[in-house]
Amino acid sequence: MDVRAYLLERTPLIDEVLDAAIPPVEAPPAELHAAMRHLLFPGGKRLRPAFAMAAAEAVGGSGECALPVAAAVELIHTYSLVHDDLPCMDDDAERRGRPTVHVAFGESTALLAGDALQAAAFEVLGRMPDGGAPERVLAAVRDLAEAAGSRYLVGGQVDDLSFDPADTRAERVESVHARKSAALIAVSIVGGARLAGADEPTLARLRRFGERVGVAFQIADDLADEGQDDSCSMLRAVGALAARERAGALLQAALREIEDFGERAEPLRALARYAVWRSE
Amino acid sequence: MDVRAYLLERTPLIDEVLDAAIPPVEAPPAELHAAMRHLLFPGGKRLRPAFAMAAAEAVGGSGECALPVAAAVELIHTYSLVHDDLPCMDDDAERRGRPTVHVAFGESTALLAGDALQAAAFEVLGRMPDGGAPERVLAAVRDLAEAAGSRYLVGGQVDDLSFDPADTRAERVESVHARKSAALIAVSIVGGARLAGADEPTLARLRRFGERVGVAFQIADDLADEGQDDSCSMLRAVGALAARERAGALLQAALREIEDFGERAEPLRALARYAVWRSE
Repeated sequence: MDVRAYLLERTPLIDEVLDAAIPPVEAPPAELHAAMRHLLFPGGKRLRPAFAMAAAEAVGGSGECALPVAAAVELIHTYSLVHDDLPCMDDDAERRGRPTVHVAFGESTALLAGDALQAAAFEVLGRMPDGGAPERVLAAVRDLAEAAGSRYLVGGQVDDLSFDPADTRAERVESVHARKSAALIAVSIVGGARLAGADEPTLARLRRFGERVGVAFQIADDLADEGQDDSCSMLRAVGALAARERAGALLQAALREIEDFGERAEPLRALARYAVWRSE
Repeated sequence: MDVRAYLLERTPLIDEVLDAAIPPVEAPPAELHAAMRHLLFPGGKRLRPAFAMAAAEAVGGSGECALPVAAAVELIHTYSLVHDDLPCMDDDAERRGRPTVHVAFGESTALLAGDALQAAAFEVLGRMPDGGAPERVLAAVRDLAEAAGSRYLVGGQVDDLSFDPADTRAERVESVHARKSAALIAVSIVGGARLAGADEPTLARLRRFGERVGVAFQIADDLADEGQDDSCSMLRAVGALAARERAGALLQAALREIEDFGERAEPLRALARYAVWRSE
């Protein structure tokens, strides 16, 4: 299974929904809309949206029906990067080889662009095309809001900022990874499957799959960013060998959750392997 | 009609929903949850939530059925104040006689508390108790996300920050007021009535009512804050007399929109008069 081809095929569909979710740069205030689009286009690998689409396919739906969740999760992810880069946070000047939003547009515009990107995430879900069952969409809103809130994404960021670099307990690192990174990946997968009509037991298994893949993905990220000095890092906590083992074990545990999902879950499995090992 | 008694009676119901929407301070990260609660308890007059409840009553529903919208709008309003006060924005040290969130908890925690308050707004709507019609709630999500986004709340804030103090065109001031303040008041009123089951023509009239009341409220706020040096202010643009006349005309136009709503709309009318004239 060619993961890069899978991603390349889906990216234009995802970008179309993202483009429609944010007013054009010509719409006033032009500066705000340009700032909102700065990190969104061109974006990253669109891994979270692809997970949403692959999850919908894994339960027998079309990838397209997951697009509102796919776009909403990418908007939340993007807003969190814009705010993470701000001077009072990580104070980063570059991301993906370009100036960060506050460097390009100023601090107050970057703050407000992040705020508006979060609102846009919920707007794109709320504008779900007719025919989408409203109770499914509403459940996706609830899941996304929870994952983006103080117990998950934002809470994980708070604990990441104050993480004691002398703390080498793997479970403490995993707790931050689970909240700061994995919850949003899990909600992408669960939300995509939800819009495709999956039942609750299936969603529960996909949630466990997503949580494990998400933590393994973050550990792999720690390993890849070897040069960086994140205080909350599995590499720093347990060393490269144990970190790699842990990521592998989590990926295997994740794949076991969906082992009887059949052939149609192949893209989801392949994306998980790709996310963790950055290869096919 | 005793507006203060009406507000006093509803505040405990609103505060109960707000309290349940934010994890207790004991829940980790404790600092984040304390920061989220700092400006929320004790809050302001809870005018926006009261508007939601009064709108539900005005269309024949119970005020209680509007509580998810009431709480969600108050959470959006609160997050916007926390971010407005930040050093890169208005850099305010005090609000409602207490230190602002970034003064009490530091800048990064205040930024993240605002982010999490916005997510909590959508979570409280998404967790709407069973029995609420999901399509109504989803429409309320869409309206709230739109009002909180780049074309309304955030866009109005961008234009407010860059407003030219030499610009004395009343319609420019009103455009900022309409987006930065009135849209959220209108969405409170429309959302409350929506959860109470109002039809679309009724919602359209309530939206026009809310937009006019919201602008009049903001003009009255400009008049009350006479000492302040906001560059975007109707007082500065046209002087006290003309500003007062404009607020009065908008209030009358608003009240005409709902003049045939009968006796049960009396609290909504009284709240509008109170919001604009700060008296009964």
